[in-house]
Amino acid sequence: MDRRSLIKNAGIAGVLAAGVAPAVHAQAAVRWRMATSFPKSLETLHGVGVKFSETVKALSGGKFEVSVHAAGELMPAFGIVDALSEDTIEMGLTAAYYYTGKDPAFAFSCAVPFGLTAGQTQAWKEHGNGRKLLNELFAKYNFQSLSALNTGTQMGGWYRKEIKSPEDFKGLKMRLGGGVFGESMAKLGVVAQNMPAGEVYQALEKGTLDAVEFVGPYDDEKLGYNKVAKYYYYGAWWEGGADLEFFINNKALAKLSPENQAIVKAAAAVAYNDGTSKYLSLNPISLKRMVGSGTQLKPFPKTVIDAGFKAAQEVYAEHSAKEATFKKIFEDLRAFQRDQILWNRISELPFLQTMSSVKI
Amino acid sequence: MDRRSLIKNAGIAGVLAAGVAPAVHAQAAVRWRMATSFPKSLETLHGVGVKFSETVKALSGGKFEVSVHAAGELMPAFGIVDALSEDTIEMGLTAAYYYTGKDPAFAFSCAVPFGLTAGQTQAWKEHGNGRKLLNELFAKYNFQSLSALNTGTQMGGWYRKEIKSPEDFKGLKMRLGGGVFGESMAKLGVVAQNMPAGEVYQALEKGTLDAVEFVGPYDDEKLGYNKVAKYYYYGAWWEGGADLEFFINNKALAKLSPENQAIVKAAAAVAYNDGTSKYLSLNPISLKRMVGSGTQLKPFPKTVIDAGFKAAQEVYAEHSAKEATFKKIFEDLRAFQRDQILWNRISELPFLQTMSSVKI
Repeated sequence: MDRRSLIKNAGIAGVLAAGVAPAVHAQAAVRWRMATSFPKSLETLHGVGVKFSETVKALSGGKFEVSVHAAGELMPAFGIVDALSEDTIEMGLTAAYYYTGKDPAFAFSCAVPFGLTAGQTQAWKEHGNGRKLLNELFAKYNFQSLSALNTGTQMGGWYRKEIKSPEDFKGLKMRLGGGVFGESMAKLGVVAQNMPAGEVYQALEKGTLDAVEFVGPYDDEKLGYNKVAKYYYYGAWWEGGADLEFFINNKALAKLSPENQAIVKAAAAVAYNDGTSKYLSLNPISLKRMVGSGTQLKPFPKTVIDAGFKAAQEVYAEHSAKEATFKKIFEDLRAFQRDQILWNRISELPFLQTMSSVKI
Repeated sequence: MDRRSLIKNAGIAGVLAAGVAPAVHAQAAVRWRMATSFPKSLETLHGVGVKFSETVKALSGGKFEVSVHAAGELMPAFGIVDALSEDTIEMGLTAAYYYTGKDPAFAFSCAVPFGLTAGQTQAWKEHGNGRKLLNELFAKYNFQSLSALNTGTQMGGWYRKEIKSPEDFKGLKMRLGGGVFGESMAKLGVVAQNMPAGEVYQALEKGTLDAVEFVGPYDDEKLGYNKVAKYYYYGAWWEGGADLEFFINNKALAKLSPENQAIVKAAAAVAYNDGTSKYLSLNPISLKRMVGSGTQLKPFPKTVIDAGFKAAQEVYAEHSAKEATFKKIFEDLRAFQRDQILWNRISELPFLQTMSSVKI
């Protein structure tokens, strides 16, 4: 599809400024466009798209190129699923739970409260039924997914006042991830604001927001949240390991040669490993710096976690009663997860507890 | 290198029976051989080599093929580093700590007591100094490494009698991983036996071995250890996440086109993600089955873990005092690890503790 038809279909004037220069692709036999939901400044979330693109180019000897476009360049941050459904882009890089307005079951592909860790998510998707069930859902929107990176367990977010009991959530205007989590926080009284990460700083500064949860220390510091909120909470229950994903248009994928299809899959694996381990390496450095400059680190009290659990269970039950797809995926995830918890209790958990107690 | 010169150089008659049929490679422009340290029956450890080979073939459209040879086919299980040093194979799939007889610092590339988890290992290798420092060491043996899979936190092994105190290790004839761990267990009185996994069952049955630690429930069940030892211990401190690796001959890699070099790296990433998550998915299933058929699951007492910690610290200090490379890598790893523990304490650890306490 040329630039003109892209503009026509996506209807976003911003594409003119996006620098989708055909010259860049002059030598490539296959040219794809990837839209991301993130600002260019986040070299973690947006950067994993760049890593994917570089890897596709290297693996194909330059015969397959993917141009990467930050939020707002080709379409708004959350316009990716619509564009894939309409076959106007070949792929996106986004978080499935941004699209729970289309189907609440989308959340399972990214993160749900009291859900899986990064490693467990990979196991469920690749060796359990996860990927298969989710791709059946995504097929209704003309795409399938590959993991792009996992953020690891996320922080509980930034607050301008302390959270001492579940009561403190009442009336709190908070930017947070969507899906089951957003709905369960609404039960606790939070007034959820689902806005792109790049717009949060100003809203907190102006006081139109009281709190924000995004990812973790590295991104949060980049976005300046520590400058406009003092309390940084941990012990969050909602994103044990959030999976960001490449959403790939099914028609575009089917048109590729078997070799290029394998390249897409392998480039996603390279990007996933790079991005997931990058978070682990960078988060502690940002954390120490922010704590050194005044951030107050606080654990959520148990009463708050218990209230979050009760609210999440209610939301799971409500959706399961109404939506067959949600129920099917939820039950599959929970069965897989019970085994994972059993195994974790005698493997990584005691190891981490030991490492947290010894002086090395 | 043709079959005749391979036989001449490797000096292993068994190659005749290995089925390295040139016909298989008739269409491939580049042909590599991979030797693994594992029996074919372990579709986790050996299987990740097969996954690598399949991925290379798919990515190259069949122009690059890698034949995969189980332990004993081309060389003995632990002959891989010698073969790479002598440029007689292009790559191996093995555990670095099998070769600590060459240099004790090899252990850092796989696992050391009170070391890193799977995720932390990737972060240290790819975004810390880990891979760089280890490849400087491996360059002396003409190879470099890429992660092939991580086993996750391993079990404490199989014992024919209970381990109630550190005293119970005295005189215990035990098959275990090499390196700092093996040496620290020797300080506790263990008589270490570094034998291939496939030879352990008979040794336990005959009573020439009292105990074995290998990996975790899935492999251990395959190898039948549960049939010849009753007590299965957890809370082990020696392999928080053991990295198996592809060791790649530097000359062979340099001869590849940039495209094929990228293919080697990407195929390793595909294999790593597949193998690492496969372990997580399979371990709990085997664990439940073995516990159901009589295996007694036991935690190591704290006195035993404390004794293990003291012994490991002594071994680290002894090697660091004598060997500059060991000291340099150890100190780099520990500095990285301290940050990781700090971050883990407020991220994945409290999440796992919460998940271990709620009823889902």
